[in-house]
Amino acid sequence: MLKLYFAKGSSALASHLLLEEVGADYTAHEISIQSGAHKEGAYRAINPKMRVPALETAEGIITENPAILNYVAATHPASGVLPDTSFGRAQADAFNAYLCATMHVAFAHKLRGARWADTEQAREDMAAKVPANLRDCAQLIEAHYLKGPWILGDQYTTCDAYMILVPQWLSKAGVDINEFPKLAAHRDALMSRPATQTVMAAHDL
Amino acid sequence: MLKLYFAKGSSALASHLLLEEVGADYTAHEISIQSGAHKEGAYRAINPKMRVPALETAEGIITENPAILNYVAATHPASGVLPDTSFGRAQADAFNAYLCATMHVAFAHKLRGARWADTEQAREDMAAKVPANLRDCAQLIEAHYLKGPWILGDQYTTCDAYMILVPQWLSKAGVDINEFPKLAAHRDALMSRPATQTVMAAHDL
Repeated sequence: MLKLYFAKGSSALASHLLLEEVGADYTAHEISIQSGAHKEGAYRAINPKMRVPALETAEGIITENPAILNYVAATHPASGVLPDTSFGRAQADAFNAYLCATMHVAFAHKLRGARWADTEQAREDMAAKVPANLRDCAQLIEAHYLKGPWILGDQYTTCDAYMILVPQWLSKAGVDINEFPKLAAHRDALMSRPATQTVMAAHDL
Repeated sequence: MLKLYFAKGSSALASHLLLEEVGADYTAHEISIQSGAHKEGAYRAINPKMRVPALETAEGIITENPAILNYVAATHPASGVLPDTSFGRAQADAFNAYLCATMHVAFAHKLRGARWADTEQAREDMAAKVPANLRDCAQLIEAHYLKGPWILGDQYTTCDAYMILVPQWLSKAGVDINEFPKLAAHRDALMSRPATQTVMAAHDL
């Protein structure tokens, strides 16, 4: 059985959603960021990066959303959430890399600025730029990367599970998703799925 | 034929190296960041994110190093640079996501701070923290993620091509790679390969 380590409301929501969506045999184990459980020895032995998500498998631990999403997709081929050509998988990988390394990073400058600067003033300056940066990311996806109804077209893929974080990031940054009609329609489609509702409830969202 | 869009000395070096390493049929087309060619219409039609690398294939454009690396590996199976199990590929994806979203992002705060803050003071504060952050990343790889001789063990994979950037990032941030003996040995092994030498020369490195 797979075991997901997650924190409520964290980016682990994406991997959690895909596990639920494909009907994986898994349990979810909460790591409290607030109480610092991610920095304790027991969890550091699981993920030395001290981040969630982490997925325990029979073969070992997998970290990072893009990796967990691809693994869950590849090991549940009947779900169809992994594109079936190298080019299709590359489009999914590219989209997921953008969410991971650009949009999530842009959002992280709101509350996690201490990762990148030591002064309070710098952290305030970073936080101030977050809404504009997230708006730019949302506009880029709206204009170029959401084929509809799902990210890559007719088929729900790993990218759509990762997209569950986008309305969260926009909302927390005070950006109205309705500025982006395609993103808003995608959010609605995502929220109508039973797997999404199950996982949102598990994260108290 | 594949066509790689790259800038000399940029992170496109990683995708460029893997193309050379697997013996791909490709051409490399330089986009000058200094002259702003990445922001001009012709290139924005190729990559609206205005970044390199981008790979033109017969089916369309692929962006983002993790996606290009997986695509090049998957379409050159004889090279053996893609692990042959789902778990192995997940380990590669996880490592590549870490370089993409954590270590590259940590380095980018040295010269690209304007992405995340508008004040000069904030950009200086971010730049000041870069050596410490890169040292932390290097130490994490040294302690946990370099099995040896290659990242995932006996087989050279996509991760090793991506690793070509690490000595560059450390050097530009004033961090001595020799603080990390396994990283230094990996760098030496990488540099001894003809493909590495070819690509480094193409980037004037």
